Amino acid sequence: MKKLTDIDWEIFEGLSLEEKKPYLERVDGDTMPYHTLFAQQFDRLILERLCALSNRIRFINKSKEGALYLKSVLSHKRAMLYFSQPSSRTFLSHLAACQLLGMTTGSVRDAATSSEFKGESREDSIRTFSSYFDMIIMRSPEQGLAEKMAWELSNSSRPVPILNAGSGKDQHPTQALLDIYTLVRSFENKGGLDGRTVVFCGDLLRGRTVRSLSYLLTNFSDVKQIFVAPKALRVPDDVIATLDAKGVSYEVSEDLKSAVKAADAVYMTRIQDEWDNSQGESAQIDTSRFKFGADELALLGPDGVIMHPLPRRDEIATCCDRDPRAMYWRQMRNGMWIRAALIASTFGLEKEIMNCGY
Amino acid sequence: MKKLTDIDWEIFEGLSLEEKKPYLERVDGDTMPYHTLFAQQFDRLILERLCALSNRIRFINKSKEGALYLKSVLSHKRAMLYFSQPSSRTFLSHLAACQLLGMTTGSVRDAATSSEFKGESREDSIRTFSSYFDMIIMRSPEQGLAEKMAWELSNSSRPVPILNAGSGKDQHPTQALLDIYTLVRSFENKGGLDGRTVVFCGDLLRGRTVRSLSYLLTNFSDVKQIFVAPKALRVPDDVIATLDAKGVSYEVSEDLKSAVKAADAVYMTRIQDEWDNSQGESAQIDTSRFKFGADELALLGPDGVIMHPLPRRDEIATCCDRDPRAMYWRQMRNGMWIRAALIASTFGLEKEIMNCGY
Amino acid sequence: MKKLTDIDWEIFEGLSLEEKKPYLERVDGDTMPYHTLFAQQFDRLILERLCALSNRIRFINKSKEGALYLKSVLSHKRAMLYFSQPSSRTFLSHLAACQLLGMTTGSVRDAATSSEFKGESREDSIRTFSSYFDMIIMRSPEQGLAEKMAWELSNSSRPVPILNAGSGKDQHPTQALLDIYTLVRSFENKGGLDGRTVVFCGDLLRGRTVRSLSYLLTNFSDVKQIFVAPKALRVPDDVIATLDAKGVSYEVSEDLKSAVKAADAVYMTRIQDEWDNSQGESAQIDTSRFKFGADELALLGPDGVIMHPLPRRDEIATCCDRDPRAMYWRQMRNGMWIRAALIASTFGLEKEIMNCGY
Repeated sequence: MKKLTDIDWEIFEGLSLEEKKPYLERVDGDTMPYHTLFAQQFDRLILERLCALSNRIRFINKSKEGALYLKSVLSHKRAMLYFSQPSSRTFLSHLAACQLLGMTTGSVRDAATSSEFKGESREDSIRTFSSYFDMIIMRSPEQGLAEKMAWELSNSSRPVPILNAGSGKDQHPTQALLDIYTLVRSFENKGGLDGRTVVFCGDLLRGRTVRSLSYLLTNFSDVKQIFVAPKALRVPDDVIATLDAKGVSYEVSEDLKSAVKAADAVYMTRIQDEWDNSQGESAQIDTSRFKFGADELALLGPDGVIMHPLPRRDEIATCCDRDPRAMYWRQMRNGMWIRAALIASTFGLEKEIMNCGY
Repeated sequence: MKKLTDIDWEIFEGLSLEEKKPYLERVDGDTMPYHTLFAQQFDRLILERLCALSNRIRFINKSKEGALYLKSVLSHKRAMLYFSQPSSRTFLSHLAACQLLGMTTGSVRDAATSSEFKGESREDSIRTFSSYFDMIIMRSPEQGLAEKMAWELSNSSRPVPILNAGSGKDQHPTQALLDIYTLVRSFENKGGLDGRTVVFCGDLLRGRTVRSLSYLLTNFSDVKQIFVAPKALRVPDDVIATLDAKGVSYEVSEDLKSAVKAADAVYMTRIQDEWDNSQGESAQIDTSRFKFGADELALLGPDGVIMHPLPRRDEIATCCDRDPRAMYWRQMRNGMWIRAALIASTFGLEKEIMNCGY
Repeated sequence: MKKLTDIDWEIFEGLSLEEKKPYLERVDGDTMPYHTLFAQQFDRLILERLCALSNRIRFINKSKEGALYLKSVLSHKRAMLYFSQPSSRTFLSHLAACQLLGMTTGSVRDAATSSEFKGESREDSIRTFSSYFDMIIMRSPEQGLAEKMAWELSNSSRPVPILNAGSGKDQHPTQALLDIYTLVRSFENKGGLDGRTVVFCGDLLRGRTVRSLSYLLTNFSDVKQIFVAPKALRVPDDVIATLDAKGVSYEVSEDLKSAVKAADAVYMTRIQDEWDNSQGESAQIDTSRFKFGADELALLGPDGVIMHPLPRRDEIATCCDRDPRAMYWRQMRNGMWIRAALIASTFGLEKEIMNCGY
């Protein structure tokens, strides 16, 4: 078994994600993540176990007795939410997940409060949190920080788990989880996710969401991926290369309407102009044909689903909001369930919850 | 029975407050509010039920066993406090009310954190909160937003209740509730609130508190209202028109001392210069005769009470703070009790708490 | 017995710390603090009782059952954390201590949120908190405010305890407590703290930490104190005068290496340049010889301990972090335990916890 206590940081840092994966697993021999850092940690078995646990938690929570049972499972633990890059949606979803399981929480969530840490290194700050809390849920603009701290803490006297709630441009593993869970739930009584066609539309170049979800979908059989974007925001080559390597079927297109006709799921995304350079190049791009409105709704099949990681601007017209196929509200709530499942699993509670009497 | 699911927003929006009231009631046939949006929802019966429930909660909370019982009643629920217009006093009072009932909470309470929502509509933000929480307590500078969201959520798959903790210049219904509760408590063993004389003093033009309380007092019999203010800050005509229409006795005056002699309760308010135009017209007004100090204290009857919604500046001299008739500190704490009562009632717990064994 | 209700503020204010101490004790005759305002309240007996209670709490918390018992002892109480001077470390440590004991909390912790209180006096703000919460943990740049409020609240109808979490330049009593607790723990199975040599190094002029700890160490027998600092940041005369008056052995030096050789504990501190005048005089001082690195580590005895109140800059090299004698991480966690002990004691729970079955 591979452990972070058996490997130097300099060596660990140089490994590929696939090689890092086993070092981040639980130390009791279960392959579920202890530190959750990147989407590539989730193989199909892990995804299925987490989806099943989410379903279970969602069911248990329907009764007051069940909800109180859930609040008891981690009522002796405390979580720290360290959001040096603010995101209220992700923050609140993780907070609610902790609360579902009875964890109390502390937080640093805005620049004003965290600026005071300036005198010290982020490593020292995070070690501070590990002194007072039993889990650290962190969001940071600094790529690799979560990984460094996972290694640091595992080699300290307080080896508390790290949950990466978004780091830099690249990883946001729990967003990918909730997207998969939403797809799995949407098709669970309709033959499952295997063999479906998923359309991605919008800014496919700069959204880490699309990158992670595209990767995770390769865990399922025969899921075709269609990428619809303006030329300037086309899906990056390395995503395509991964699909090629795995022999996954895909299309690159600029025609949303045709794609919708073929789609089981349409995943819309926002133009991420926060990554623009100073010229604001996004404003130069004609995105008018990459929006989902009444026309697209009419073309979508009766079992089709519309997803969006939110926040949205005008990529999906509000006239779609009440359609039963609009899954983006439920998608958010799924984020709470799957995060609760992930946290419960991190603390080794999967079996206990699956088998509880509620 | 009238339901928000049976009426279009455009039609609902155009109704008078009186016409809107029944649409905001609980859907089980009880006339208590489900969404609490404006003071005009509270008729005398509702006020009496909420005051009785507040008294009960206050009593139960005196013992540790009772406090733990209260913490159990909503321990399976989570509340979101969304304060896009900051107010620590109102925030903390609602927070404490939630905690009394065992609810866990999430919050967005300052501009820095909430600015990040800018890309999306407020409607989408609030729907986000409804995904993770079971009640939304909101304060917003935007008039009508709470109402819109009450309609939206009632027509969604997550019809969670909205509690308006202050919107724009016009409504702050729980402040009016706590004022009434303070008056009811002050006179409950002394013959009650009917037939009393209430003096309002200060900035009667721009304080929504005075407007709401004046309205709610018309639910009681023979309560005389005396409005004492500088000419430039006089009570607005529409408040007077309401009293005229209801046949309520009132006086408009500039003589605080005479009014205090006649008063059972004196409700002092702050000059609300945050609503000044750029000339800062408040500074031009002589407010020296509209302050409560040692002289006024000497004129107040032995059973009289002094109230203030706080924060105060110098409208009440600190030499009054220790007088047993100074009710403004208790008034704050009453805010916690009546908000707990309102929240418990929103979730249909009135009977259970009234009849519990504590 | 001396009570704050029996003495006027003007008289109390003029007393020496020694004279003030008895007024701040519990009113049931126990000499433990009710309001905790300054380090001089802790005599040896109180220190020993708090260290013993911390040990007990730490032990009980090891099992889930124990942790849940601890969460029950104050689950009917609510604490307000009022940090008008931000400090995330101190904030989170107090928060975690409250959570350990089951208290729910409210907070005001940054300038943005608290600025809104500007219209009102701080005294009114704190009285507001006392309306909603059962304890006020406060950090303020304003010297004496905690004391004033302890007197005010004790003379009000809501006499909730005040815990000073740092005020101005002078007092930070719980930091001194956690330092003592760390020393006591470090030597508890090695003959105890009496007779030891403690080295203070760094900015001894402006750190309130050193001042308080130096004072508290005089409660123990034959503890020698060595003060190592650049001339410009030398330990102040009044600290030395106190040691002289108590007949405590000490040295003033500029030679860290020699001091380390003699040391049982080395207490490193940061240059507190936030107190610099506009010329930034700290930058002119050569501090290179006042840092703890590999060389010093080699000179420290096998039972020696290295402490630091954190945050650190480069006073301790990171190469020391993994050494078993590096006690600064544990020191932080000790802060949580001793604060929990102090809070539990404030509410009269010392005996109950010491004698519980866990």
